[in-house]
Amino acid sequence: MIVWALLTSVGINLGLCLLFFTLYSVLRKQPSNLEVYAPRLVAAKEGSEQKNGFNFERLLPTAGWVKRAWQPSEDELLSVSSLDAVVFIRIFIFSLRVFGFAGIVGVLILLPINYLGNQLDVDFDFSDLPNKSLDSFSISNVNDGSKWLWVHFCAVYIFSGVVCYLLHYEYGYISSKRYAHYYSSKPQPHQFTILVRGIPVSSGSSCSETVERFFTEYYPSTYLSHAVVRRTNELQRLTSDAEKLYRRLVHLKSETKPQQRSRRDGFCGLFGRKVDVLDQYGKKLENLEDNVRMEQLSVAGKEVPAAFVSFKSRLGAAIALHIQQGTNPTEWVTERAPEPQDVHWPFFSSSFTFFSSSFIKRWISKLVVVVACAALTILFLIPVVIVQGLTNLEQLETWFPFLKSILNLTVVSEVITGYLPSLILHLFLSFVPPIMIMLSSMEGCISFSQIEKSACTKMLWFTIWNIFLANTLSGSVLYRFNIFLEPKKIPGILADAVPAQASFFIAYVVTSGWTSLLSSELFRLLPLISSIIKRPFSGKDDDEFEVPSIPYHSDIPKVLFFGLLGITYFFLAPLILPFLLVYCCLGYIIYRNQLLNVYAPKYETGGRFWPTVHNSTIFSLVLMHVIAIGIFGLKKLSLASSLTVPLPILTLLFNEYCRKRFLPIFKDYPVECLIKKDREDQNDPTIAVFYDKLRTAYKDPALMPKRHPRSTDDHNSPLLQAGV
Amino acid sequence: MIVWALLTSVGINLGLCLLFFTLYSVLRKQPSNLEVYAPRLVAAKEGSEQKNGFNFERLLPTAGWVKRAWQPSEDELLSVSSLDAVVFIRIFIFSLRVFGFAGIVGVLILLPINYLGNQLDVDFDFSDLPNKSLDSFSISNVNDGSKWLWVHFCAVYIFSGVVCYLLHYEYGYISSKRYAHYYSSKPQPHQFTILVRGIPVSSGSSCSETVERFFTEYYPSTYLSHAVVRRTNELQRLTSDAEKLYRRLVHLKSETKPQQRSRRDGFCGLFGRKVDVLDQYGKKLENLEDNVRMEQLSVAGKEVPAAFVSFKSRLGAAIALHIQQGTNPTEWVTERAPEPQDVHWPFFSSSFTFFSSSFIKRWISKLVVVVACAALTILFLIPVVIVQGLTNLEQLETWFPFLKSILNLTVVSEVITGYLPSLILHLFLSFVPPIMIMLSSMEGCISFSQIEKSACTKMLWFTIWNIFLANTLSGSVLYRFNIFLEPKKIPGILADAVPAQASFFIAYVVTSGWTSLLSSELFRLLPLISSIIKRPFSGKDDDEFEVPSIPYHSDIPKVLFFGLLGITYFFLAPLILPFLLVYCCLGYIIYRNQLLNVYAPKYETGGRFWPTVHNSTIFSLVLMHVIAIGIFGLKKLSLASSLTVPLPILTLLFNEYCRKRFLPIFKDYPVECLIKKDREDQNDPTIAVFYDKLRTAYKDPALMPKRHPRSTDDHNSPLLQAGV
Repeated sequence: MIVWALLTSVGINLGLCLLFFTLYSVLRKQPSNLEVYAPRLVAAKEGSEQKNGFNFERLLPTAGWVKRAWQPSEDELLSVSSLDAVVFIRIFIFSLRVFGFAGIVGVLILLPINYLGNQLDVDFDFSDLPNKSLDSFSISNVNDGSKWLWVHFCAVYIFSGVVCYLLHYEYGYISSKRYAHYYSSKPQPHQFTILVRGIPVSSGSSCSETVERFFTEYYPSTYLSHAVVRRTNELQRLTSDAEKLYRRLVHLKSETKPQQRSRRDGFCGLFGRKVDVLDQYGKKLENLEDNVRMEQLSVAGKEVPAAFVSFKSRLGAAIALHIQQGTNPTEWVTERAPEPQDVHWPFFSSSFTFFSSSFIKRWISKLVVVVACAALTILFLIPVVIVQGLTNLEQLETWFPFLKSILNLTVVSEVITGYLPSLILHLFLSFVPPIMIMLSSMEGCISFSQIEKSACTKMLWFTIWNIFLANTLSGSVLYRFNIFLEPKKIPGILADAVPAQASFFIAYVVTSGWTSLLSSELFRLLPLISSIIKRPFSGKDDDEFEVPSIPYHSDIPKVLFFGLLGITYFFLAPLILPFLLVYCCLGYIIYRNQLLNVYAPKYETGGRFWPTVHNSTIFSLVLMHVIAIGIFGLKKLSLASSLTVPLPILTLLFNEYCRKRFLPIFKDYPVECLIKKDREDQNDPTIAVFYDKLRTAYKDPALMPKRHPRSTDDHNSPLLQAGV
Repeated sequence: MIVWALLTSVGINLGLCLLFFTLYSVLRKQPSNLEVYAPRLVAAKEGSEQKNGFNFERLLPTAGWVKRAWQPSEDELLSVSSLDAVVFIRIFIFSLRVFGFAGIVGVLILLPINYLGNQLDVDFDFSDLPNKSLDSFSISNVNDGSKWLWVHFCAVYIFSGVVCYLLHYEYGYISSKRYAHYYSSKPQPHQFTILVRGIPVSSGSSCSETVERFFTEYYPSTYLSHAVVRRTNELQRLTSDAEKLYRRLVHLKSETKPQQRSRRDGFCGLFGRKVDVLDQYGKKLENLEDNVRMEQLSVAGKEVPAAFVSFKSRLGAAIALHIQQGTNPTEWVTERAPEPQDVHWPFFSSSFTFFSSSFIKRWISKLVVVVACAALTILFLIPVVIVQGLTNLEQLETWFPFLKSILNLTVVSEVITGYLPSLILHLFLSFVPPIMIMLSSMEGCISFSQIEKSACTKMLWFTIWNIFLANTLSGSVLYRFNIFLEPKKIPGILADAVPAQASFFIAYVVTSGWTSLLSSELFRLLPLISSIIKRPFSGKDDDEFEVPSIPYHSDIPKVLFFGLLGITYFFLAPLILPFLLVYCCLGYIIYRNQLLNVYAPKYETGGRFWPTVHNSTIFSLVLMHVIAIGIFGLKKLSLASSLTVPLPILTLLFNEYCRKRFLPIFKDYPVECLIKKDREDQNDPTIAVFYDKLRTAYKDPALMPKRHPRSTDDHNSPLLQAGV
């Protein structure tokens, strides 16, 4: 890619970004778009909607929202959102620091050195800059065996040190935030509760009795209550059917005129005798509600050998969590309970019977998921290879000869080479997060937070493999799995391939980073379109309106992948760094804005996503070191190559140290914290009320009484009375 | 090696074995050897020695001891020894079962198939059997691409299944034994105690105060007492000096005549004025005891940030053990306390200040030990390679031409090729266990049991690397570390090299297995010699007599290594199996005998050595599978080669299952057990007495009052009164 092509791509994307920015500034001020751009505010003010009249200012693009997104302090952000949101924002702050340092070193020191080399046979002709290859700014342009490479060597060492220092600082900072957040929290059900699986139910007694007997015997002073999990999939189906029918009934009653209410009961409502539709629906609903009532009675028998067990103190729950319960380690398996609203109830209902009833089955399902995930990650290469092919015009012409005339147009060819490949890749990639979520929920995760955390890691590996490795190693090499059986050759292969793809990744940062961040994240293109389409059809049924939550599992890997690009290309092609810095600044402001206005936290893990960020950064560093070893070898500076070998080892040792020093903090709270909080509770007069709430906190929502009055005459629904 | 050479070697060793057996039968009946062959009985009957007169029967070799070793049931063995001893014996039972099955399949099915092949160009001439190469009994003799290889393929699958079944059975059996042993145990100090390291001592308060404050605050109901660890190396040195001087004094008083007691106080006792030696020593002793007293007072200030903390219940100790204590995971690090007599006090005194004071230092010392251990394991190859050279006569002749005439003698050459190599190897190997013990104690293990367990694993890897790999890959290949960077080639290299060394390992089983088992283990050659040498010099100072304990760290790896040989050579050269079966039978009887008569248990880990045995067997199986993949490839049966690939994966999955199902049992006891035992204690009237004992159980023995009366006039030593 030449400089001119890069500038074109940057120009196009800059234009798009400005367009989205302007449109956003205008559209967000229209009251009709409030649900898209500020659903949190809508949810907060529900009911008290004030429709302002037309205002000319509403049509002017302004940047006031940037200021409003910038202003709140971290504590304010924490108070309106969750610690996870703060951690997410810290990723940008961390990246800004890393790339700020890298940018200074890279652009001011490494870039001139690269450009002044003449390995690629280009002369110092500044006038011809636009037609220069981008490779002349990369390390490939430094002469083989040149002494200047020692500058790169030093830069790699210093940069690794700085990143490790920042990682250590950030880990410590977030740990302290996590403790502070815990200390300031009110008593919450999940702090007092554990999930017990693999309950050994003996014949002749129910699961509930077994749990009761076990915990009253071994935890007489701290055991409070338990809720056995039941298979409610049938009940859920019936309840949602009844709900739908009820809504249609209300809709019919309010909208249609009496004469329209009758129709024929035959084929397509055309033949047969006339019946009143309202009556028909009313009867159907009654039938359904009878069924619901019966199912609610029968569901009591559909026990699953798992239960949420609540204790009177946090320490009591921690003891049951940490110490093996029964003599058989595969029975009475305990795990931390998620927050009540975080529990993935469909999991318990549908797949629990197979995937989680016994220890062995759960283990097998985990293995199956790992295999499926690996298969998906590897097979996904096929569309990626096709995308790779699209960037190659000749290939395209041989495949589709009839397109020759179109492809010969300059505009078309430029769009195809510069923009289309990453767009298609992007499209394909958008299907992956839901699949990963599905795989994670099959894996045995019982809460949304666990599922997203697991999917986040999967997505990260997926992205690194499919975008980084597949693009740099041009697919075909990856399919020769042999290279993974010859680890010695890996540095050489990477060093050969990675610098060559610098221009692709710069374009990737600009298209997939800048533009898609602005279009999909800030502008919320898809929700906007769906809202515009829905508006004329939906009347007032706002009960379906839901505040979205931030999809950590797809957003965190994206940001981390840009981190990986920045770290690996830092000394190879420093030209990528300014673009990444812009991305980080944009991301910081935009995500702050979205967290304040759009996304409501669905759960609170207390910053448990940070270890993923840390590990990913360590991986990026080690990858950079491996490439450095290869590059210095290729550049005939074998001493530097050998001297780089200790660097990945030191980095991994540093990681091991952090695992010991900080990771346990993100797993559980220590006795010190637990007991301090427990003592606070003892002096709290509201604790008795809390215990009462705790007893029913982990009830399947399908078993909860639901209030929807039958009609205007305000009969209570039988659903309400039959709540188990 | 030809059959004849093997028979010679077997003959020599059988003769030696018989000799040792006979000698043992006779010598063990001599009362003067009781301390060598039945120290446990001596220790039990201490004082009541009855010297029987001469008895003719004492000179007759009898096999009565075999019967006596055979008879006791496992429970009886457990009651007189420890569960560890039972587990050790179970290794033999397990091996007997494995090799019994393998022997039947190998000798009856695989051996004839191997022999009837003609890949190695030998014809079916039974008359020439003695001059046949042993290779004609190995898989190398089966024709390339022969259908008979499918029999080997099936044998590998079936054998793996049987071994896994036996492993599962044995793991479950030992788990149940472990629980039963725990349930039947009396309250013991280590069940109620944990070791806390990394105590954050604030300036202005002592370590003891910090511990007291922390545990009374967070464990008010269960905390009992604590014992801060102190640096007592100086005190230990002084005490042992005083002890030595005291003994010499007693010896002088009892043995020498008054006129011999005076000597000159000048150079070498030749010049200067005459002094009474007794007086001189007495004064020295007084000085020393003054020093001891002062040191005992000053030692109180030499606190190390570590303490043994005792609780009133097992559950209390388990809670403190399993849940992170402080907000910083590197402080208040808890670990299970070993039994009081198992604590490695020298560790606390000497190396603790550096190696274990802070978390970081401890971690660094662990890393250093890992590196040192790896270096030792790898560098040890040099003597092994020399030994390899010795087996090669031509090499020896070129090195030492003057030996040519001697080397041409048949006897010499046969001894050199058949016997010397493994003898030299054996000699070298005997230096390794003490080094491994030293490394393990530097690693941060605080008890003898931990040290031995860790050294056991180290020895196992050492043995596998240096004896198995170095011998099969003939050293030179191993030094090209490249092959470990090309994992794809490993099966081929192993398949090429391993079958060729079958004869070496058969000889190894016979020499290093049979003979050294009988000579060093049963006959106790070295203790016998040292006892014979010491006897004329030592008078009655039996106080130095100590019942030995079984060196698990050197014995278990030895047995496991024979297991590895049996499993890997099962389908390659089944001829090794009968020899291994004999080894296992011998080992079973001899070790039972030794455990009943010789070794006293020094500690009780409750069978925690078994996971090592399990892992080693799994490793052997996977190694066999890798070799099988290589062999079937070499033999041009690539379908069988590919079909073997799932086998190691399945085996590793099986191992993973066992890790989940059984390993937690060997780490800790579940709440169920702990509470049941705690409740038993509540009804036990002697528990108050036990608590009193518990308070002082973890006191450094250097601080314990020692009773050695100054002289016959029975003054109590000041050591006694000054006990801190």
